[in-house]
Amino acid sequence: MPQTLTLHPDRLLPVDSKVRDIARALYAQVKGLPIISPHGHTDPSWFAQNECFGNAAELLLKPDHYVLRMLYSQGIPMEDLGIAPKGSVSSADPREAWRLFGQNYFLFRGTPSQIWLDWVFAEAFGIDVALSGETADHYFDTINAKLASDEFRPRALFDRFDIEVIATTENPLDTLEHHKTIRDSGWNGRVITAYRPDPVVDPEFEGFLDNLQRFSDITGEDCLTWQGYLAAHRQRRAFFAEMGATSTDHGHPTPATADLSPADAEALFTRVTSGTCSLQDAELFRAQMLTEMAGMSLEDGLVMQIHPGSFRNHNPQLFERFGRDIGADIPMRTEYVENLRPLLAKYGNERDLSIILFTLDETVYSRELAPLAGHYPVLKLGPAWWFHDSPEGMRRFRRMTTETAGFYNTVGFNDDTRAFLSIPARHELARRIDCGYLAELVAEHRLSEEAAANLAADLAYNLAKEAYKL
Amino acid sequence: MPQTLTLHPDRLLPVDSKVRDIARALYAQVKGLPIISPHGHTDPSWFAQNECFGNAAELLLKPDHYVLRMLYSQGIPMEDLGIAPKGSVSSADPREAWRLFGQNYFLFRGTPSQIWLDWVFAEAFGIDVALSGETADHYFDTINAKLASDEFRPRALFDRFDIEVIATTENPLDTLEHHKTIRDSGWNGRVITAYRPDPVVDPEFEGFLDNLQRFSDITGEDCLTWQGYLAAHRQRRAFFAEMGATSTDHGHPTPATADLSPADAEALFTRVTSGTCSLQDAELFRAQMLTEMAGMSLEDGLVMQIHPGSFRNHNPQLFERFGRDIGADIPMRTEYVENLRPLLAKYGNERDLSIILFTLDETVYSRELAPLAGHYPVLKLGPAWWFHDSPEGMRRFRRMTTETAGFYNTVGFNDDTRAFLSIPARHELARRIDCGYLAELVAEHRLSEEAAANLAADLAYNLAKEAYKL
Amino acid sequence: MPQTLTLHPDRLLPVDSKVRDIARALYAQVKGLPIISPHGHTDPSWFAQNECFGNAAELLLKPDHYVLRMLYSQGIPMEDLGIAPKGSVSSADPREAWRLFGQNYFLFRGTPSQIWLDWVFAEAFGIDVALSGETADHYFDTINAKLASDEFRPRALFDRFDIEVIATTENPLDTLEHHKTIRDSGWNGRVITAYRPDPVVDPEFEGFLDNLQRFSDITGEDCLTWQGYLAAHRQRRAFFAEMGATSTDHGHPTPATADLSPADAEALFTRVTSGTCSLQDAELFRAQMLTEMAGMSLEDGLVMQIHPGSFRNHNPQLFERFGRDIGADIPMRTEYVENLRPLLAKYGNERDLSIILFTLDETVYSRELAPLAGHYPVLKLGPAWWFHDSPEGMRRFRRMTTETAGFYNTVGFNDDTRAFLSIPARHELARRIDCGYLAELVAEHRLSEEAAANLAADLAYNLAKEAYKL
Repeated sequence: MPQTLTLHPDRLLPVDSKVRDIARALYAQVKGLPIISPHGHTDPSWFAQNECFGNAAELLLKPDHYVLRMLYSQGIPMEDLGIAPKGSVSSADPREAWRLFGQNYFLFRGTPSQIWLDWVFAEAFGIDVALSGETADHYFDTINAKLASDEFRPRALFDRFDIEVIATTENPLDTLEHHKTIRDSGWNGRVITAYRPDPVVDPEFEGFLDNLQRFSDITGEDCLTWQGYLAAHRQRRAFFAEMGATSTDHGHPTPATADLSPADAEALFTRVTSGTCSLQDAELFRAQMLTEMAGMSLEDGLVMQIHPGSFRNHNPQLFERFGRDIGADIPMRTEYVENLRPLLAKYGNERDLSIILFTLDETVYSRELAPLAGHYPVLKLGPAWWFHDSPEGMRRFRRMTTETAGFYNTVGFNDDTRAFLSIPARHELARRIDCGYLAELVAEHRLSEEAAANLAADLAYNLAKEAYKL
Repeated sequence: MPQTLTLHPDRLLPVDSKVRDIARALYAQVKGLPIISPHGHTDPSWFAQNECFGNAAELLLKPDHYVLRMLYSQGIPMEDLGIAPKGSVSSADPREAWRLFGQNYFLFRGTPSQIWLDWVFAEAFGIDVALSGETADHYFDTINAKLASDEFRPRALFDRFDIEVIATTENPLDTLEHHKTIRDSGWNGRVITAYRPDPVVDPEFEGFLDNLQRFSDITGEDCLTWQGYLAAHRQRRAFFAEMGATSTDHGHPTPATADLSPADAEALFTRVTSGTCSLQDAELFRAQMLTEMAGMSLEDGLVMQIHPGSFRNHNPQLFERFGRDIGADIPMRTEYVENLRPLLAKYGNERDLSIILFTLDETVYSRELAPLAGHYPVLKLGPAWWFHDSPEGMRRFRRMTTETAGFYNTVGFNDDTRAFLSIPARHELARRIDCGYLAELVAEHRLSEEAAANLAADLAYNLAKEAYKL
Repeated sequence: MPQTLTLHPDRLLPVDSKVRDIARALYAQVKGLPIISPHGHTDPSWFAQNECFGNAAELLLKPDHYVLRMLYSQGIPMEDLGIAPKGSVSSADPREAWRLFGQNYFLFRGTPSQIWLDWVFAEAFGIDVALSGETADHYFDTINAKLASDEFRPRALFDRFDIEVIATTENPLDTLEHHKTIRDSGWNGRVITAYRPDPVVDPEFEGFLDNLQRFSDITGEDCLTWQGYLAAHRQRRAFFAEMGATSTDHGHPTPATADLSPADAEALFTRVTSGTCSLQDAELFRAQMLTEMAGMSLEDGLVMQIHPGSFRNHNPQLFERFGRDIGADIPMRTEYVENLRPLLAKYGNERDLSIILFTLDETVYSRELAPLAGHYPVLKLGPAWWFHDSPEGMRRFRRMTTETAGFYNTVGFNDDTRAFLSIPARHELARRIDCGYLAELVAEHRLSEEAAANLAADLAYNLAKEAYKL
């Protein structure tokens, strides 16, 4: 007999009965609020073309780097999961890959992946038995059948999930054709883009110089000159904003910033584009560009997001065979106080600029980020990110930032995901954990019930909308 | 209708009913104990002159850098809060500033500032509605009226707060005239000083060389010679001790210590006082001076406190306009194991020396500070400090230090504040949180009830008295 | 009247009654499982010779560096505890030392030492009053009398403790004669060794060059040549494996690894054995040897353990007088992401290699170790170690690693102790804390009851057995 799969109505709420009662009441007030998804990685072509998703393995297994990394860590080869080496096509049977996933689903016990996936299985697909080796075929068939139906097309799910707005992430070389298609389609779903210039900002990005050439082509500016390069950014930012973007996003190894003189910046650009860029120059250029981007945000009003601290592609063998984004990125110790100072010295006191900081290094919550955000007008704190986007991770985030930064220097939740079907589960998880945290404060008489009710709605909905100007 | 303001009798105690019962019983035993305030920043002139405090904004808003930083972080200009740029006088109406504070008081939800202030409002001033834009005028008028009464003069509050002893902090150039006045006044309140030599120890302190000149003037020693400089310290330490001091305090960027040969120390002093001191020499000099101060403490018995790890005045624009201490200090990663070793290698095994360590970097609690204090006879741990002087901060401190250092290598609570009216609230908060922590240990059968009762009194009163020799 | 000593049946379980009920049921299922002790420091001569242990002070006080460090930190001289300076014999009366311990036993309130020791007193020795100055003599007499009985001989305790297998730790120069004696004795207790090559791998180890000479003598290889040295390791590893070893252990200051070319490795070895080894070369050699050892583990199947991050003998005065292992080791900040990369780039994807990582720096749990173990097939996480082998330490370990690494990239508990009598208490503590953690997940509906039951047995027994190939 397979185990049943049911989602308990009180899941993720604190266990103490008094606290749970308060949390349940708070959650009841916010569970029906629409989803604001201001930062994520869904594919705009889904909403542009509105085609059916593929099979269960294609949709839920292969693109989920959380799932891949865990299975791989236990010795399961990528190939068996349907991941093909670069330049080749997977010969794995999707059903077999899914069975392997089912047999090893116990590995996800205690992880947020299980919480998200069980929601998808139970709520999105209506399955009532737990995933295991025994039930894998049932899952595969059930999910595939549903995915072939109109109710599981991207736009139908978007509406069913009650998404008020979702942001995707594109780089400056992207034509945003899918966003144009969505806009022209008459469909009223709000799908916007965000400006992520890493491929033309990071000298260590694969094909950086080629990217600059394409940046010239797409903008008509000479992006091998410093002024042309900056003008190209301004032009594309304006275009992205036209296409709905309200934010930029910057994925740098560190949060280093710099404030070079115009002459030094130009000389640095010349070195960086000469084809023999040192590691120091690459870092300095990224640092200078964060400050340049902040200056442009002050001009055009785009909210700036900084996502630092990931050692990308830590596993060279795996990277060589399979490429990026298969679960081999590892967080690094990250320092913000010295690194952000050049930018903050220049723009930190601006009232018309907003910079949202993220981290993979939880030690900075109470030591660096909360004190910085609790002082500088430009700074706000993004939610617990990536490895920390989890019940315990969110609790640590609140417990370590609230007492110094308060709630109003944070920006609500964002799901940061490409796993479209799990988006409601992720927002629900965040809302439940935040309501639980607020309930603890109420139960300890550190917060009034009225304030908690306001905050529950702010954390679930209002803060994200305001912080991202949505 | 404004919300009511009431302080729940069980506030800040754990929510589980069994644990809360134990905590409540423990707290009942210690809530009446007098306040020992062995480290803080109240102004001795208050107690010397015993004049009425000014208005609500002057007393509770302008000097509170916790409050200023939060309001400023949300875009409220310093000027509107009554903070005047250097060299000018504030033109802000205190009532208007207070209204702004009231309108934005919701920003402090979940912060210790709200806990402290609500206590001041409810207990010290007897106000029964919550602060908001709507009630700001009522607050302003009520508080000002009370402040004008004799019961709110500093000495009356000191007695009402049941303060057994309070330490202020002065630098060696201070004449301690207010302390003399207090002593000569016949008033029986015990207000003592502490020796904080940063202005004559830190070569990067504003006016360092001028300070040395004044150090010479005040001591009659030639403080531009190494021996004269050391003798001046000895002389002023003795004077401070005469005026009641039992401790010294050292606010350094890092806990670096050094143990140079006498010749190297003298050569360093010559470089440092030459007017062209490098950053490295400045750090080395501070490091050497911690060891020198430890040596003097071994001679004269003053307990040594080290408060490292704050990046002072991180916001250069704000510093230039408004100066120090307005909420722009940011904690930094801090390393103790290597940094303290020179001092500990020399003095770490002394039984007649006591050094109390503080930190703004919570990562060192379990990794460095508890292991160090759990081994070296000279070391004790100060309480959770500054940004961490909060319910969650104190819980982290206990949970991360107790299992390695025990309770008896800690020194109880100190409020470290210039916000005089909040001192009872701060001690009460610490006592409640400590009783809650002890109650958890009892409820998990990790501590006997008898031991918990002893510890509650030790943490609330005895340890501070013993550690600071009060 | 002395206080009674009783061990509450629910000790260390969560306090919430629903959670406690779940935890109690889980614990009931695993409390009777045999002890797997795959890593520790008991003395094999105990089991070889099976002689009675000495007196209470000799067995429970003098060898316990947790106890020594706490007593020393409060100003009690080592000599008074029976620790003799190097080259001399202690003149302290064991009874007097024990009395001192009893008088100061309150210092251990809230520490795991008290939990372990109270178990030893109550369960192993049947004492029913708490240790104090008042009861110290009663303790001393009772314990000594029991220790003289046959039921307290090492093998009898081994059986009584239901130890299925225990690993000791020896270096390559050890003859393993005690293990041979045990094996030849006909006693069916399973006592195995582990290969800890630090004395012949760490150029900074006392007597390193002498150790290499002895390494040559014992193996017949020329250990002053790189190839001979490597061959000697292979030979001794094979011998250790013959004597039951299933693992190696490496106690390095940092987890630095290197992957030098054979020529560079040989040149480094020449420098390291030349007698003028720089600190950089010493670190590089340790780094290279971790990679060499991983390669040999891939050949011979020994599981590799890495224990980095302790600043050994931090107190030079104490080290000079008393030597190693008396409580003066202090954890250091430790970095794994960059440090392990050379080894992982070479061997990280092997399915026949297993490396168990430990840390004294809890900040790496969620930032570095869980992400690494949640990706690399070779990596698993050892339990909370040393200073963190405690209730709160274990809870932090689970809360900070599970959501990213899951449970199945961890290896259960190991006691890592030489305090033989406390081994059941340590495993019991771990089982209780793990059951409490699982119960919390169940109560928050993050884990099913069936999964929790499986996991309780896995964490208590199965994972250690599998991970260490026992």
